[in-house]
Amino acid sequence: MKFEILKEDKETRARVGKILTDHGEISTPIFIPVGTTGTVKAVHQKELENDIKAQIILGNTYHLFLRPGIDVIYQSGGLHRFINWNKPIITDSGGYQIFSLAANRKLNEEGAYFNSHIDGSKHFFTPENTVDIQRKLGADIMMALDECTPYPCNYDDARQSMELTHRWLERGIKQYTATKSLYGYDQTFFPIVQGSVYKDLRVGSAEIVTSSNMEGYAIGGLSVGEPVGKMYEMTEIVTGILPAGKPRYLMGVGTPANILESVSMGIDMFDCVIPTRNGRNGMLFTSEGTINIKNLKWKSDFTVLDENGTSFVDEHYTKAYLRHLIISQEILGAQIATLHNLCFYLWLMEEIRKKIYEGSFSHWKNMTIKKLSSRL
Amino acid sequence: MKFEILKEDKETRARVGKILTDHGEISTPIFIPVGTTGTVKAVHQKELENDIKAQIILGNTYHLFLRPGIDVIYQSGGLHRFINWNKPIITDSGGYQIFSLAANRKLNEEGAYFNSHIDGSKHFFTPENTVDIQRKLGADIMMALDECTPYPCNYDDARQSMELTHRWLERGIKQYTATKSLYGYDQTFFPIVQGSVYKDLRVGSAEIVTSSNMEGYAIGGLSVGEPVGKMYEMTEIVTGILPAGKPRYLMGVGTPANILESVSMGIDMFDCVIPTRNGRNGMLFTSEGTINIKNLKWKSDFTVLDENGTSFVDEHYTKAYLRHLIISQEILGAQIATLHNLCFYLWLMEEIRKKIYEGSFSHWKNMTIKKLSSRL
Repeated sequence: MKFEILKEDKETRARVGKILTDHGEISTPIFIPVGTTGTVKAVHQKELENDIKAQIILGNTYHLFLRPGIDVIYQSGGLHRFINWNKPIITDSGGYQIFSLAANRKLNEEGAYFNSHIDGSKHFFTPENTVDIQRKLGADIMMALDECTPYPCNYDDARQSMELTHRWLERGIKQYTATKSLYGYDQTFFPIVQGSVYKDLRVGSAEIVTSSNMEGYAIGGLSVGEPVGKMYEMTEIVTGILPAGKPRYLMGVGTPANILESVSMGIDMFDCVIPTRNGRNGMLFTSEGTINIKNLKWKSDFTVLDENGTSFVDEHYTKAYLRHLIISQEILGAQIATLHNLCFYLWLMEEIRKKIYEGSFSHWKNMTIKKLSSRL
Repeated sequence: MKFEILKEDKETRARVGKILTDHGEISTPIFIPVGTTGTVKAVHQKELENDIKAQIILGNTYHLFLRPGIDVIYQSGGLHRFINWNKPIITDSGGYQIFSLAANRKLNEEGAYFNSHIDGSKHFFTPENTVDIQRKLGADIMMALDECTPYPCNYDDARQSMELTHRWLERGIKQYTATKSLYGYDQTFFPIVQGSVYKDLRVGSAEIVTSSNMEGYAIGGLSVGEPVGKMYEMTEIVTGILPAGKPRYLMGVGTPANILESVSMGIDMFDCVIPTRNGRNGMLFTSEGTINIKNLKWKSDFTVLDENGTSFVDEHYTKAYLRHLIISQEILGAQIATLHNLCFYLWLMEEIRKKIYEGSFSHWKNMTIKKLSSRL
């Protein structure tokens, strides 16, 4: 993997860059649609490529490990081939899902025991075997196994958890270094900064992670329920320490406003279920603000979905029709809202890159956050 | 509406024709995808048009009446505009859904009382107001309100029900004749032959329906649980009486084999939820037979979905991947299976028309039924 900074904003830490992987180029800042089980819910792969113009998608190791199982994906030639997606893929390590989804999880120095949320079967993830699993998945970017602290989390627990994450990181890197790609293309490995909402822990974690000298770094344990101000505070501290020359990935974030703020702090990569999950529930993001399509006010609104939208659904369908579909829980409602929201998110990232290039990012960002945060 | 017969098969009653509506031409025999609530579940309208090549779709009056409500659709300019589908639409009268879905239904000479299956609200359908509702929906082909008998149904009940349907038909035609299209294009009105599985009732019903001299006729009350032999027997009796010069529509039928047999008896139009509903449950129809994609045998089958398929999904996705999606209840699984099955059904109708043209229908039909009925 190669990362190149093409333009730096003068007033903020925002920058435009490009990540080069063996599956192609990623323009940063970028948003990564979440493809949990090997599908970005409710969209075809060709829509991801041609309509949404996704440059990279995310797969969840925990989900794929349980279903269809790593062997099936390995036999098929890796996740790219299994799902027929030839652009870059990032996989997480499963840590987050163990703590948010699995039953009977039990942690020790060695790793994490858990029961499948699907059939109760018992499994054990370690820093080493999550590298092996991600080797089989064949992600272009693999993630270290971490413990993601909940919010709130007291200082001692946060410190101990972070220290475990650091020891796991060391083991993960060792396994990563000792193994190689199974499919002939390059795979990189990102450590994750933890430390909950404690400044000194975040500083210490960012320093340790930086010293690992990997090709990119992630910030985890944020957007887990803490006040948004805390999230920005921690992000700003960490991006002040992580080296400028490597991509920074803020995991699980966020709303359009969160993304704009975090870009200004020097974040390059984002993933989040908000555009897809909230879309399925009828929340639309537009350049004029958010729409709750279930609202009665749209019942007889026969104007197109979004006259400034970039997707075919924006002009093919009306607000009243989408409202009807979402209220009736029709699959097409999920398809339309997902396509719209992901197109909006990817369009927003393109605008961000443009504004940084033009040198007008900071001013535009403040205006845009205000606009995007209004409710239509 | 105009109907023209272009070619008649010499060995069977099968024929190729074309129906002309103000929303375009329909080649018969044709299959009509079911768009219950104003959406053919899990496919975009542009996929219906460009991939599936649907020539006409069906909307359910009962569903649309309850949600979004007829006024919303009327305000939008009719169902075509509400859902953005500019080809022909047929709507049923709601009779079937009142008897299969609604609660507390109560029938009298005047019409049918029922409670919504969604919110329990009380409603009343009559032969007259179902014409008015379908005028507002703006379907190219509207259906008469009928009582659809269940199976089994004793002779006296079947006769009384059929007689009520005939009296309702007379009132429906009166209302149809006394009203006109609200949107400037032509709407036609099909009566429905009833009579359960009793030959003399079917004969009588077919004669009465024929004497109404409408532009096309439907056969209802079949494919409701009776043995398939009974269905064919009744269909053959009725198509022997309905005039050759008008299209014949067999409601709610069926499997590919049912369609092939019924075409040979002179049926021109079919609608059925089998390709869509069974698709969502993992059943695929192919030219080599049916596939239950949930079956373990497809777990590691990385061949394309259907090498003879006509849809992009057939070459984009593998059997193992679709199996994973359907088992994981992913929306994309429903999207892929629906697209595949509808493409197959529409392809089958095209093949049927070709074979009738070529004069090889009868022989081909018998071979094809055998092949399509096998399980892969």
